[in-house]
Amino acid sequence: MIELYTAATPNGWKISIMLEEIGIDYKVTPVNLSDSQQKTPEFLALNPNGKIPVIRDTDNGMVIFESGAILQYLAEKTGKFLPAEHQGKYKVLQWLMFQMGGVGPMMGQANVFYRYFHEKIQTVIDRYHNEVKRLFNVLDKQLENQDYLAGEYSIADIANWSWVHIAYWAGVELSDFKHLNNWVDRIASRPAVQTGVNIPQKPDAEAIKKAGQKLIK
Amino acid sequence: MIELYTAATPNGWKISIMLEEIGIDYKVTPVNLSDSQQKTPEFLALNPNGKIPVIRDTDNGMVIFESGAILQYLAEKTGKFLPAEHQGKYKVLQWLMFQMGGVGPMMGQANVFYRYFHEKIQTVIDRYHNEVKRLFNVLDKQLENQDYLAGEYSIADIANWSWVHIAYWAGVELSDFKHLNNWVDRIASRPAVQTGVNIPQKPDAEAIKKAGQKLIK
Repeated sequence: MIELYTAATPNGWKISIMLEEIGIDYKVTPVNLSDSQQKTPEFLALNPNGKIPVIRDTDNGMVIFESGAILQYLAEKTGKFLPAEHQGKYKVLQWLMFQMGGVGPMMGQANVFYRYFHEKIQTVIDRYHNEVKRLFNVLDKQLENQDYLAGEYSIADIANWSWVHIAYWAGVELSDFKHLNNWVDRIASRPAVQTGVNIPQKPDAEAIKKAGQKLIK
Repeated sequence: MIELYTAATPNGWKISIMLEEIGIDYKVTPVNLSDSQQKTPEFLALNPNGKIPVIRDTDNGMVIFESGAILQYLAEKTGKFLPAEHQGKYKVLQWLMFQMGGVGPMMGQANVFYRYFHEKIQTVIDRYHNEVKRLFNVLDKQLENQDYLAGEYSIADIANWSWVHIAYWAGVELSDFKHLNNWVDRIASRPAVQTGVNIPQKPDAEAIKKAGQKLIK
């Protein structure tokens, strides 16, 4: 069984969606970011970086943090959503890394300066909006002639979708990106995604706001 | 043979160091970021995100972008610097993801606002300096009782070192972090690292400055 320590944020949704998709037995422990539960000694023993999500696999006792590593682990454990052969596998992993190093951090910074920072600094907001739009253009072009980022539906789609579908939160209009917008809808129609994105709870704007405010301290 | 398209930046050094470490035959094509060669149609055909590094493996024709995916590919191809068994492998991959999603993007933002941005905005500089120091503290603690981030020397060390060793560029004092500083020196003493970090050329402050200025357009 997989024990999942998570909260209602994009990095958390990646894992609850993946667990629903692979249909494995799992147990959720919600982590209250507003109370800084992720900075307690108990949580830091699971992830010294003090961030959700974290999993523990009761089959072998392994504890894994960082959503990108967890996705790859669950894919390899079950043989799902990541091809075993190298050509297909690395197409997926490069688009997973594109999310980990690009879409996630840049949308994260856009969220902070668009919503939470104690000053409104238009030049900084513009910088991050421009970078998010640049990344969205890359994704849009990639999806022009295919339904998913790296061939079949994969952990690369799950990772990117978990961030991209809440573009409004970063202040970026998704409907400006036709193929990307269609891909968001395509993935949103999957029952496992609809269930996973509401775990551990429906997106709670107030909780996210408070968590974001902590980010900038 | 591996064809490497790269420039003298942290993400580029990851791959030239790895290629030196594994001792594989490779050929370097320097990409001139000052001339935006990474945004030409020819380069975008290799990486639609328009960033270095990219590799092509002439053994199978595979083209891979995103430094984190390339490191994992080269490790799996050669069986070096990434354990095959899951316990060891995912310890490494989580610290690789920590670099991809944390150390790289946050040091990158610190570089931009500390060095390149057209305004000096102290609150924004402080935000990124604080986040880089927080991440350095996590690494420092991880290295308190071990020589490398995930047991044996691995691609997680190569990835993090390629960024952390130029902390001065982000305006952060590395000597404040004793264990991290010792680890930087430990890795810097490796012959493969000394060769790899000077490929395709010695760090060229002027070229990096110009490349950084492009980032903020």
